[in-house]
Amino acid sequence: MRIVVLAGGIGGARFLSGLKSAVPDADITVIGNTGDDIHLFGLKVCPDLDTVMYTLGGGINEDQGWGRTDESFTVKEELAAYGVGPTWFGLGDRDFATHIVRTQMLGAGYPLSAVTEALCDRWQPGVRLLPMSDDRVETHVAITEAGTGERRVVHFQEYWVRLRASVDAEAVVPVGAEQAKPAPGVLEAIAAADVIIFPPSNPVVSVGTILAVPGIRDAVASAGAPVVGLSPIVGGAPVRGMADKVLAAVGVESTAAAVALHYGTGLLDGWLVDTSDADAVAEVEAAGITCRAVPLMMTDVEATAEMARAALELAEASR
Amino acid sequence: MRIVVLAGGIGGARFLSGLKSAVPDADITVIGNTGDDIHLFGLKVCPDLDTVMYTLGGGINEDQGWGRTDESFTVKEELAAYGVGPTWFGLGDRDFATHIVRTQMLGAGYPLSAVTEALCDRWQPGVRLLPMSDDRVETHVAITEAGTGERRVVHFQEYWVRLRASVDAEAVVPVGAEQAKPAPGVLEAIAAADVIIFPPSNPVVSVGTILAVPGIRDAVASAGAPVVGLSPIVGGAPVRGMADKVLAAVGVESTAAAVALHYGTGLLDGWLVDTSDADAVAEVEAAGITCRAVPLMMTDVEATAEMARAALELAEASR
Repeated sequence: MRIVVLAGGIGGARFLSGLKSAVPDADITVIGNTGDDIHLFGLKVCPDLDTVMYTLGGGINEDQGWGRTDESFTVKEELAAYGVGPTWFGLGDRDFATHIVRTQMLGAGYPLSAVTEALCDRWQPGVRLLPMSDDRVETHVAITEAGTGERRVVHFQEYWVRLRASVDAEAVVPVGAEQAKPAPGVLEAIAAADVIIFPPSNPVVSVGTILAVPGIRDAVASAGAPVVGLSPIVGGAPVRGMADKVLAAVGVESTAAAVALHYGTGLLDGWLVDTSDADAVAEVEAAGITCRAVPLMMTDVEATAEMARAALELAEASR
Repeated sequence: MRIVVLAGGIGGARFLSGLKSAVPDADITVIGNTGDDIHLFGLKVCPDLDTVMYTLGGGINEDQGWGRTDESFTVKEELAAYGVGPTWFGLGDRDFATHIVRTQMLGAGYPLSAVTEALCDRWQPGVRLLPMSDDRVETHVAITEAGTGERRVVHFQEYWVRLRASVDAEAVVPVGAEQAKPAPGVLEAIAAADVIIFPPSNPVVSVGTILAVPGIRDAVASAGAPVVGLSPIVGGAPVRGMADKVLAAVGVESTAAAVALHYGTGLLDGWLVDTSDADAVAEVEAAGITCRAVPLMMTDVEATAEMARAALELAEASR
């Protein structure tokens, strides 16, 4: 079975752990969001790709969901001693090595997809991890500064990590997406898929950014495979992160049903909501999307595997 | 008193510690060798500049004479886990931060001299540290591989650190030197100096490389200030390092007298040899260079300060 998953960071990575556990023999291609990539200290950092790679490769800090386990912060402390920031982005020493290798390879002329493949040679994530694009796309957010009232456009990471989404996102723009091309293999994987899954990743800045790369949305919409998604919103709030802030920016309510309708019947064949959102099923189905309510809390790998099984069953039912 | 010192790495840095101690109020400009610079992991590494900066700024690993104190090697281990080398060059985590800051600034368009000044803002070395040039110069060494008999040209660091000078240096070439320009301030500092000192640095790959940058040798030769040097060869062998190997490459015997004559009367006004080489004094003086024999072992800062005082006295005597 060939499965394609459009993944962001923590939510996507944890879902993939469950999916691998549920169908260990499946051929899984992950199309990773690179809209949260950022250049820090002259190094190319790809947080979502790395979270998937570290999680599936056994190197993740399980507690925080991102970054490396057994991490130290000597380099970061030294950079701060030089007065070089930002200090709000927590790059550890082990993590720095990944960014150094990536930046060196990019500098030598390798595209991000080749670099990602080389990094995965070490991590053996058990999936084929493709960046959505080899071209630079960086999501930016328009905000009004709380103190000064100044309107600014900040990098998504500054909005998410430094400001912790404490002010409204007035607009979310994947800068560069319009000019970007899908990375080699992305459209082919979508076309050849037996199932396409939107994991409980952020619908705007993760899955939405991937779909913003010209060609990817159309490929998903016209794919022969059923497309099923899992709601990242449970009981009217994001399971983790601050998805409600960026959903508001695109005029979408933070409900399991509203996110399904945001993707729409043009993309989605099936949608899973949490059992606590069972009353959303009728609304989603009324819109023409097959919907079921199952437990959607990724408390451990087995609970997540059960979610993955439910998604695959829903895909069969939507075929 | 304005003192200009042409410095390599460990020998130059330790001498400068003694010089600062001997004449704390002097205005010292260090023209640092950049011929041993190397790009590692996509980062610009300047071993000699950093050794001077760390030594005078209190950050050096005193025992080994290079690298940072209290160092860890997490990044290096991770790079090795990615299969990314070289593994023979010992970059520690603290040291990596310096190279990351430098590389980022160079990438942003700052010349190496401005970068060095910015790094020194943190370290406050108490001297003005100038790279010999903002242009890329990298010393290469022609060798014959011990095992295969293959002739190769290797980067100086590969010769020095990986091979530990275990084979003969058949030629030593400061690649790029002919096209390089002295960094801003270098010629001005030499012209304005009251004393110019060649510390006991390597005469070929440290001081020699600095002098190979067009304009610097002439500026030293035509400076109004006396030029005095301290022999890095004591008792027919280098005090540290493997200077004999690279001296042989330029046809110079590893003796205190031969090194003085290699610099020659065109450059040197005075030369200090170790007391164990007192018999060299007559030969050096016969060539027209004022020479004295004093203890030249930099066993501690006070012994080194005494050497610096002897050099300054010799400069007065040669004036």
